[in-house]
Amino acid sequence: MTETLLKDRVEEMMTALAKLGKDERGYTRLAFSDADMEVRSYLIGEMERAGLTVREDAFGNVFARTRGNNALPAVLIGSHADSVPQGGNYDGIVGIVGAIAVAEKIASEKLPRPVEVVLFMAEESSRFGVANLGSKAMAGMLPEDAASFYKDSDGKTLGEVMAERGFVAENAPYKKRVRAFLELHIEQGGILESQLSPLGIVTGIAAPHRYRLTIGGRADHSGTTPMNLRRDALTGAADMLLRIEELAQANARKGVVATVGQLDVYPNAMNVVPGKVTMSIDLRGTDEDNINSLCIAILENVDAIAQKRNLAVQLETLTEEEPALLDEGLVALGEYCAGEIGERTMRMASGAGHDALYMTRIAPVGMIFVPSKNGISHNPAEYTEMADIVRGTNLLYHMVKRLAEE
Amino acid sequence: MTETLLKDRVEEMMTALAKLGKDERGYTRLAFSDADMEVRSYLIGEMERAGLTVREDAFGNVFARTRGNNALPAVLIGSHADSVPQGGNYDGIVGIVGAIAVAEKIASEKLPRPVEVVLFMAEESSRFGVANLGSKAMAGMLPEDAASFYKDSDGKTLGEVMAERGFVAENAPYKKRVRAFLELHIEQGGILESQLSPLGIVTGIAAPHRYRLTIGGRADHSGTTPMNLRRDALTGAADMLLRIEELAQANARKGVVATVGQLDVYPNAMNVVPGKVTMSIDLRGTDEDNINSLCIAILENVDAIAQKRNLAVQLETLTEEEPALLDEGLVALGEYCAGEIGERTMRMASGAGHDALYMTRIAPVGMIFVPSKNGISHNPAEYTEMADIVRGTNLLYHMVKRLAEE
Repeated sequence: MTETLLKDRVEEMMTALAKLGKDERGYTRLAFSDADMEVRSYLIGEMERAGLTVREDAFGNVFARTRGNNALPAVLIGSHADSVPQGGNYDGIVGIVGAIAVAEKIASEKLPRPVEVVLFMAEESSRFGVANLGSKAMAGMLPEDAASFYKDSDGKTLGEVMAERGFVAENAPYKKRVRAFLELHIEQGGILESQLSPLGIVTGIAAPHRYRLTIGGRADHSGTTPMNLRRDALTGAADMLLRIEELAQANARKGVVATVGQLDVYPNAMNVVPGKVTMSIDLRGTDEDNINSLCIAILENVDAIAQKRNLAVQLETLTEEEPALLDEGLVALGEYCAGEIGERTMRMASGAGHDALYMTRIAPVGMIFVPSKNGISHNPAEYTEMADIVRGTNLLYHMVKRLAEE
Repeated sequence: MTETLLKDRVEEMMTALAKLGKDERGYTRLAFSDADMEVRSYLIGEMERAGLTVREDAFGNVFARTRGNNALPAVLIGSHADSVPQGGNYDGIVGIVGAIAVAEKIASEKLPRPVEVVLFMAEESSRFGVANLGSKAMAGMLPEDAASFYKDSDGKTLGEVMAERGFVAENAPYKKRVRAFLELHIEQGGILESQLSPLGIVTGIAAPHRYRLTIGGRADHSGTTPMNLRRDALTGAADMLLRIEELAQANARKGVVATVGQLDVYPNAMNVVPGKVTMSIDLRGTDEDNINSLCIAILENVDAIAQKRNLAVQLETLTEEEPALLDEGLVALGEYCAGEIGERTMRMASGAGHDALYMTRIAPVGMIFVPSKNGISHNPAEYTEMADIVRGTNLLYHMVKRLAEE
């Protein structure tokens, strides 16, 4: 039974990894840290044990390939193994473990097209304030000054940290043609669980548009200033916040979400009417037009509220990244293979960013999601049922097999 | 001309004081600091120069009395001289300067009833986190452990700081009967200015009811959590905030105000749906029933919003001080005297707390307000026109004269 073989290997690796980089507050495997390198070494060992040919690029990304006709573009599968501080053992790990188990099985089947496992380095933004460094290096998208520009909280540059490990903080473009890239990942949200669906077929990856809004009113004594003489920046912010929520809810079917996650009040004293508020606005969606039209509606409403309340507003754009649609052929292939093995799936967008987003620059890309218990991720309570991990790995296997047989 | 004499003395003292405890960022005369003690010494000198008999109580409050029949309860007038950090030269100062000028003039008129100037120590809460320490000591309202309980930001206790100045941080009850206490003060709000009225006759002093509300939702990834699966503590807080504002506006005629001045978001990260919000609610009014009914309406609405949004709420009471109505006879006397000297007045409540609030425990109390430019106080931009200070001082003089003649 295919599934049993995959299950044993996945369980074995997940169990071994559950002991690495852990303390009483969760898993902490920051990019290029000792814990991250320990996990990387373990995974390289497993790749070798699986009979794969292992190499690394200058950035430290690891590649492990089955034997096959190297004239044919390979099927790439993989994920990352670094974590946020005090995270779980599933984010990234499920995908790299699943990929190794699949490649091992495929290797024994001697299919024409090579399959290559990719372990991306530095996927999480926790250490250097920027995400997906490894996949960006592969896609040639790192900025020229990456080595000196990005620093960790100790003030060490990315270049210094990587040099200690023998790597170089520069682009390391993946030179060969690629048939497809597939990534298995935990959902990190609660949609699959709420829909009682064990597997998600990802149709697109959202990218955030982020803004900082500054609302200026007038700080006044809370006891001596009648309600009608106030220019309260915080009640103004509340008015805007509710309107943003309402607009996002009205556009929910278009796959966009809006979040105010950060809000700071000045002077933030119990007896002073707030004179200034700053807040973040994070918009996400997989369709650029839908994001833009939500953005315009929000800004129109913010302006109208500011005018009504005699407040000043100032908007700063922090980032406007482009979302990506995944390959329609691979979405269809995922659904076809799931049907063959009797698994239920649902199509969904990924709200979180993934290395797969950058792989769209060099390959057709597909993604499989498995459920996150209670939608929790980046947290020691992160959990995915072993049965769901095996289901996802099995679907990955069937998709890879189809592609490698071509 | 009475007014000219008062004007000269008030201008002289205001000008001298404008040089004390000042730097480029405003006036900083924290309670019992060198600057505060320097101002106190100057004022004692002016009291002596005015021919008054000066004494101090164990807490450091200063009393300066005219000659008169000491068997008759005296008329007390005064205010404080300490300031917030980077404040102005008007809050408190206007009242103590006006009181000295009035007592000097009265002293020369040899009226039967003694008039006594009171300089209250430690009115501002800035240094020890609690206001009106001097007037509370006079009213016997200091807690027993005041000397050790209250500390400044350097960790020095109130007792230690006061001992260095030769004072004791204990109650020092004012033992004699008092005919009336009158305080002249800047408004610290914008009502008189907006009503084009130069003088306010205070009918009551609001006391704050203060609460801390904790709103619990669930922290989620801002990209992976659809709008309908969120339990966003911040949009819930915004909903409550707008409702609080609305209820306070609807009750504005009852003289109540409600302010959320402090709000903190957790974890306060751009890409995380807020899991927790804490916010302060500051309610003020001069009528206990009106405060209570606004409070109940707010809490009912907060609960309903929490239920609708599946959020947890927890309310902590920080303080529920009792407001005080001032003496109706003194309000009427103020209006009568203003009419005699041709000044326009308006009745108003004080939203800010004053030493006069605690003097209601030992005397009938009246207050006169003069306008604050742009309603600004506790700020270097604090300003009151000299003509208005003189108007207020002159009204104080006429009220004191009537009372001292009885």
